[in-house]
Amino acid sequence: MLFLARMDAALPPDLDPEVKADYLAREKAYCVELQERGVMKAIWRVVGENANYSIFDLDDHDELHRTLQGLPLYAFLKVTVTPLAKHPDAVDYYLKG
Amino acid sequence: MLFLARMDAALPPDLDPEVKADYLAREKAYCVELQERGVMKAIWRVVGENANYSIFDLDDHDELHRTLQGLPLYAFLKVTVTPLAKHPDAVDYYLKG
Amino acid sequence: MLFLARMDAALPPDLDPEVKADYLAREKAYCVELQERGVMKAIWRVVGENANYSIFDLDDHDELHRTLQGLPLYAFLKVTVTPLAKHPDAVDYYLKG
Amino acid sequence: MLFLARMDAALPPDLDPEVKADYLAREKAYCVELQERGVMKAIWRVVGENANYSIFDLDDHDELHRTLQGLPLYAFLKVTVTPLAKHPDAVDYYLKG
Amino acid sequence: MLFLARMDAALPPDLDPEVKADYLAREKAYCVELQERGVMKAIWRVVGENANYSIFDLDDHDELHRTLQGLPLYAFLKVTVTPLAKHPDAVDYYLKG
Amino acid sequence: MLFLARMDAALPPDLDPEVKADYLAREKAYCVELQERGVMKAIWRVVGENANYSIFDLDDHDELHRTLQGLPLYAFLKVTVTPLAKHPDAVDYYLKG
Amino acid sequence: MLFLARMDAALPPDLDPEVKADYLAREKAYCVELQERGVMKAIWRVVGENANYSIFDLDDHDELHRTLQGLPLYAFLKVTVTPLAKHPDAVDYYLKG
Amino acid sequence: MLFLARMDAALPPDLDPEVKADYLAREKAYCVELQERGVMKAIWRVVGENANYSIFDLDDHDELHRTLQGLPLYAFLKVTVTPLAKHPDAVDYYLKG
Amino acid sequence: MLFLARMDAALPPDLDPEVKADYLAREKAYCVELQERGVMKAIWRVVGENANYSIFDLDDHDELHRTLQGLPLYAFLKVTVTPLAKHPDAVDYYLKG
Amino acid sequence: MLFLARMDAALPPDLDPEVKADYLAREKAYCVELQERGVMKAIWRVVGENANYSIFDLDDHDELHRTLQGLPLYAFLKVTVTPLAKHPDAVDYYLKG
Repeated sequence: MLFLARMDAALPPDLDPEVKADYLAREKAYCVELQERGVMKAIWRVVGENANYSIFDLDDHDELHRTLQGLPLYAFLKVTVTPLAKHPDAVDYYLKG
Repeated sequence: MLFLARMDAALPPDLDPEVKADYLAREKAYCVELQERGVMKAIWRVVGENANYSIFDLDDHDELHRTLQGLPLYAFLKVTVTPLAKHPDAVDYYLKG
Repeated sequence: MLFLARMDAALPPDLDPEVKADYLAREKAYCVELQERGVMKAIWRVVGENANYSIFDLDDHDELHRTLQGLPLYAFLKVTVTPLAKHPDAVDYYLKG
Repeated sequence: MLFLARMDAALPPDLDPEVKADYLAREKAYCVELQERGVMKAIWRVVGENANYSIFDLDDHDELHRTLQGLPLYAFLKVTVTPLAKHPDAVDYYLKG
Repeated sequence: MLFLARMDAALPPDLDPEVKADYLAREKAYCVELQERGVMKAIWRVVGENANYSIFDLDDHDELHRTLQGLPLYAFLKVTVTPLAKHPDAVDYYLKG
Repeated sequence: MLFLARMDAALPPDLDPEVKADYLAREKAYCVELQERGVMKAIWRVVGENANYSIFDLDDHDELHRTLQGLPLYAFLKVTVTPLAKHPDAVDYYLKG
Repeated sequence: MLFLARMDAALPPDLDPEVKADYLAREKAYCVELQERGVMKAIWRVVGENANYSIFDLDDHDELHRTLQGLPLYAFLKVTVTPLAKHPDAVDYYLKG
Repeated sequence: MLFLARMDAALPPDLDPEVKADYLAREKAYCVELQERGVMKAIWRVVGENANYSIFDLDDHDELHRTLQGLPLYAFLKVTVTPLAKHPDAVDYYLKG
Repeated sequence: MLFLARMDAALPPDLDPEVKADYLAREKAYCVELQERGVMKAIWRVVGENANYSIFDLDDHDELHRTLQGLPLYAFLKVTVTPLAKHPDAVDYYLKG
Repeated sequence: MLFLARMDAALPPDLDPEVKADYLAREKAYCVELQERGVMKAIWRVVGENANYSIFDLDDHDELHRTLQGLPLYAFLKVTVTPLAKHPDAVDYYLKG
């Protein structure tokens, strides 16, 4: 089942650059792995904002919460999750390449 | 380029059933055609709400506005559009099947 | 899986009393049936408001949306749905009698 | 009488891990004890968020406030409380197991 | 137990004057009776607005909801209810004359 | 003349316990004195929140502002004030004991 | 004592032009009379909006409410009232010519 | 031309008292000078809040911005500015003494 | 002096098509004339919405209000106006071709 | 294609003056260069606020995001971006000098 997540990041402006780089590297590795497993179907940057919209495909709320909570940047994120159903006008429930 | 659209529909509860069915049929035909042309990459129903999230792929604001304004239900829709850039953690800008 | 729904009803004040009574009767029958099937775990009235909080237990977004859309009063409802996961401090995921 | 509480937690990201673990352990013990006494009927995690929805069953506002204020994490919580009445379509006021 | 209610009234501007006068008269009679029974401890007009703040004293959510729903103007009211506990700095929980 | 005040307190979670206790004690003494002078007619705790609703009876805006500004916790408070007039359905403008 | 009022007008777009002209004429006469009595110290148009900010000088909430409720356009107005005290940096509490 | 400004001040609660007193003194001197020059027509305290409403009379946006930016407390202020036009029901555009 | 206006249009969905076409034609003629006089520096469509952002260049609030109120569609518009000053990083106050 | 950006700056009030001056100088240089390249068509100060409205002309979301993220003050900015299409009443899509 698909969920749309919106994540707004608020990293402290005075975060040590090296610590920040480490966070971002671990976040990227984590997200790439989710995409390779097909759990994260897509992730986009909201133009101009420290925010993303991402699509998750999981069948269990607990697993989705653990997956989100596992994001290295989770402590700095404000996340909202919207459950998505198949739209009557959609050709496919899943995403077009 | 990708855009995320949120559309909230507010059809009058007392809309004549036949008129409503006609609107919905034309809306579906319009959306299916957009998906076949690759303009609409995906459309999902927000669970419980008369609303959808949909992904559009167009390179021109005027064309995107004409496309949205061409929706048969446009007069009953509140539409907000968010431009999407490639996320640094995204494997692909486009969507995973 | 559990979902919390908030439903705000806005029936037209000048709705014909008999039509209204019919809507309410069909809504009650529908909800009682959902509770007997264990799909609706609980429904409460928000004190003072034409609104309810209700708990649904379903494993599929499409089915949940159809279930909500099937509410006789759906055309007059503003519904928001929140997916619920097991809380680390919860003795049970499901509800205490 | 039943109350729905929504609690949004905002722990400082730089809270000492041991201090945090202690807070969380005491919070869990406190909540488990409330559930065993039947005061807290249920508690769920809002998927993706540092927030919970929980159901309390008490007949006195002062006691409910003391119970909430007694949460070890109270200083980091933003709590809103909604009083719940029996819904006309509810089979039971209390929760289905 | 005390509850603070805020009620915002939205009567249709084109409501027949006699119908309106009847509503207002029945509303007044209803409220006066509640005050004489000590259920409504106070009711004030928010200066400049079609709104009131009122204090209710009841020990049961169902009864409070029935009392509010029984207001002749209920169909035109947006009501929010806030449960009140005794404040540590209050000399009395109840109201000073 | 009556005013309804809503006060939301945001004390820093890491405030020294002794300093906090002193603030709370001075705040209580100040409020008790206002109630004894009939300036503060009532003060209630919003269940679950670091907030109160209180009723003030003064005939002068400057004096009301000085009274509020004089609260020992004022620097940590977000205060909103609503002027109250006599409601057409009120038996008394003042509060019922 | 001074109060700042913000009034947002929402006249139905299809209001009969003559009826509208009559409303506006009576509203103007009413406001001019208030200004001549010194009750309304000033009234300004919010540029671009069907709204005004106005300053009232009255010492009694009931009278202020009656004055506002007496506005011919009152049924179409959303009014909010803010009580004003003397500012420590103000040369005069009252208005400069 | 007249502008209505709303200024919400958020001074850090732990600001050194002497530093604070200096800020307030310079702010007062600055405001008094603006009033003597007729640039600031009025300034009022919003009862209960660290906020003011003030009326400015300038014919140039740049000068108005410089004037506001020149407030000693500017770094702690959230300012919103509303342009005011002459109201059709106003006897005077300027303020009544 | 420059002002940014945001205008949200809400035409009734059941407006007679000919009446609507007439409104839109008169609105266009009015706006073209403003642009030719240099009063309206620019007007853009917010993609997907019945809304525009437009830049006005006038030195008098009354004239700006009359100009906006003169829009044939004014009765269906919600307009907000933001005064613009020269930005310290701007090469020109006016707009680049 | 044109985008309207709104940027709200929140620099820490206690930022070292020299550091602040350096930030502002680099920000200005960056913006001037964008204007000379025609990427930034205009930038205005919102009167009274630490905010600007600016117009960007780019044909690619990724480039627009990089451009915004490249602002020296980006870490202190809250940016929202609105895509702009040609308005039916606009003489030119681009800006009038």
